Amino acid sequence: MAPSAIPTTSHTGEPELDLTSSAIEHRRTENVQSNGSTESHANGVSQPNIKELDASKLTYTFTKEPREVPAPGVFNLNDQSICTDHMITVAWSAKTGWKTPELKPYGPLSLMPTASVLHYATECFEGLKAYRGFDGKLRLFRPDCNSARMVMSAVRISLPSFSPPELEKLLLALMAVDGPKWLPRERPGSFIYLRPTMIGTQSQLGVQAPSEALLYLIASYMPAMDSPAGGMKLHTSPDDMVRAWVGGFGYAKVGANYGPSLLATQEARARGFGQILWLYGREGQCTEAGASNFFVVWKCKESGKTQLVTAPLDDRLILDGVTRRSVLALARERLGDEVEIVERKYTIEDVLQADEEGRLVESFAAGTAYFVCPVSVIHHRGRDVKVPMGKAGESGQLTSQIKGWLRDIMYGGEDHKWGVVVPEEQ
Amino acid sequence: MAPSAIPTTSHTGEPELDLTSSAIEHRRTENVQSNGSTESHANGVSQPNIKELDASKLTYTFTKEPREVPAPGVFNLNDQSICTDHMITVAWSAKTGWKTPELKPYGPLSLMPTASVLHYATECFEGLKAYRGFDGKLRLFRPDCNSARMVMSAVRISLPSFSPPELEKLLLALMAVDGPKWLPRERPGSFIYLRPTMIGTQSQLGVQAPSEALLYLIASYMPAMDSPAGGMKLHTSPDDMVRAWVGGFGYAKVGANYGPSLLATQEARARGFGQILWLYGREGQCTEAGASNFFVVWKCKESGKTQLVTAPLDDRLILDGVTRRSVLALARERLGDEVEIVERKYTIEDVLQADEEGRLVESFAAGTAYFVCPVSVIHHRGRDVKVPMGKAGESGQLTSQIKGWLRDIMYGGEDHKWGVVVPEEQ
Repeated sequence: MAPSAIPTTSHTGEPELDLTSSAIEHRRTENVQSNGSTESHANGVSQPNIKELDASKLTYTFTKEPREVPAPGVFNLNDQSICTDHMITVAWSAKTGWKTPELKPYGPLSLMPTASVLHYATECFEGLKAYRGFDGKLRLFRPDCNSARMVMSAVRISLPSFSPPELEKLLLALMAVDGPKWLPRERPGSFIYLRPTMIGTQSQLGVQAPSEALLYLIASYMPAMDSPAGGMKLHTSPDDMVRAWVGGFGYAKVGANYGPSLLATQEARARGFGQILWLYGREGQCTEAGASNFFVVWKCKESGKTQLVTAPLDDRLILDGVTRRSVLALARERLGDEVEIVERKYTIEDVLQADEEGRLVESFAAGTAYFVCPVSVIHHRGRDVKVPMGKAGESGQLTSQIKGWLRDIMYGGEDHKWGVVVPEEQ
Repeated sequence: MAPSAIPTTSHTGEPELDLTSSAIEHRRTENVQSNGSTESHANGVSQPNIKELDASKLTYTFTKEPREVPAPGVFNLNDQSICTDHMITVAWSAKTGWKTPELKPYGPLSLMPTASVLHYATECFEGLKAYRGFDGKLRLFRPDCNSARMVMSAVRISLPSFSPPELEKLLLALMAVDGPKWLPRERPGSFIYLRPTMIGTQSQLGVQAPSEALLYLIASYMPAMDSPAGGMKLHTSPDDMVRAWVGGFGYAKVGANYGPSLLATQEARARGFGQILWLYGREGQCTEAGASNFFVVWKCKESGKTQLVTAPLDDRLILDGVTRRSVLALARERLGDEVEIVERKYTIEDVLQADEEGRLVESFAAGTAYFVCPVSVIHHRGRDVKVPMGKAGESGQLTSQIKGWLRDIMYGGEDHKWGVVVPEEQ
């Protein structure tokens, strides 16, 4: 059941279904190719009445009830996320395509009880942050990566596609309006979390691809989670629970990857652990730590060289994380001589063995929410692996170095193409 | 990674995480044991401020804008399901438990854009039908089975538990109010589809079990789908796509099982097939047909006896369907001497071989939506297996017989404990 990049052909000459690779690529690129036009092209045929997502059409309705910016360190109110004054919504229907994007006051959505998303999990999302730099500028970090991934996730869950740069423009537009107030220049080094979301809204029961959908963008406060006291403590996944599998959808940012993982996470938290380290297969491959990518630094058994190791993307079990990708790129560029950067399958036994032989150097989880978060303990079947940390419970040396590089790009300490400056209105 | 019924214990004496079997059973029964009380008991400790779901508290607010019952054969309006005048909603919060159930006019739900269900697929549902009998009575079919399964699904997706008979009472209450008008006595032999749904409503971003939820019950028209012209045509699942996996959640009626399956189903429909026959593992075990259970009738290669075969429940890949369970029970009771009833793993190769050797007798899909639907074609990797049907494209003999028994119980042709009469208000 391994994914295949080569479309198979049946003996009748009709291509067999091959969905998670070539067919998705085909659907994804249909829209990308027609970028720039306001018309949609499917199979090269122009469909003049089906409108593309077009950020340049954005309309603005500003709130008449602006809310107060909370004190630093306050993120939630009555168990609810504090969001900014505005959101952007764009409706879609199969008959007419994407409607006009609207920036409007943040507030509730009205959904019929029969809406597709409430029954069949026709939903996907992205997470990225806007950073108020120490130079006063407001930046997004690699929004092109999130926008491209959102299209891939949408197609995987039978939601509509769009041209990724349009989402990027909408993200910049929302931050241009809400950034100056909600990430004020007086609070350099702070961030806000952006959550583009797409849901199936067709109000018809029945297991089918929704004919109506809603794309919406919101911005919410969120605590910094990269420095839990004493580091992140991981519990390996229970024997009878698997997060994702070959032929599944572990690589897509769809709701269906998250809800089913909560039960194990809740149990682990009740036992004092922060996240699950998800293992895969009989041999226990290390895949993700909670909803973050997982990295280990060890001395290679054979060569004795220091290696930074993480799971590969090729079997589509894990998310192609933007932080993961950035960690790997910077490490390859800046640590090339000292550290080997390795994307490969490795198991919990490999980690246990490195620990036993004193070769385990550091470990961290990497993702937008947790940024680069040092791991201090990995609990596996009754055994605690204590992972070396830096002094006073901080990140180890390599983790700190990588984290520092990324932080500099995010907060304007280093001028870098990954930091996209938001043109603010004030 | 096979599920284990035996909780494992680590060498530290602390039980290891074991979630899909014993832990779920534990959580599920916490509530069942406290049935009858309005207080919740967790781990045997009374929690006086946490209210249980209590159907006897149901309040009634009747619609002031009753809608028209559509003509027979009309199920949707403007691409939307036609629902009855009322719905029942019950809110839940972790702090106070279940609130008062309310019967009220059918209408939209208001959800914050940050609601858990829209991001993390914290959702589960049930499907059952209310039948207007030829004897004039209104019946539900085994609502106790759906209620019990709903609790299991809710726990699996980290939504709150409740005592199953309370849901059964709410289903009866909704039909007592809307049944007389929406399934009128003048339309014997008709049905309406009931959809109890639970969603995580906590308005806070972050991957966590929701602290607020909403249970709601709606009733919708739905076409009869058990007799497509020429029978149901199945296409086996693509090589690179798996519906469910051992250690996953294929056995639970959670949204996360449905959204990810739509892409393959959409492709199959574009090629003239009705549903996907989902295969599992390298050997291609037959699991489900679309969102229904899958049955084959063949002559056993070894004994020559007629066998009714379907996939087993023990590896938790498939839904424990109420129709499946009922088909098996009736067949065991009424066909015992002529037909062997077998729940076991079998592969697409077994089906192909039976076809080649002329041993394939019939096949059908069984579920609430599709009832008992004869399968006429199974397409696998370029090959069409033509499954024998009855005369004029109807069900084969065994399929017809089983379907007739079930229909009789549903529509009052046979007095049976599975048919639960709704005490109607008029």
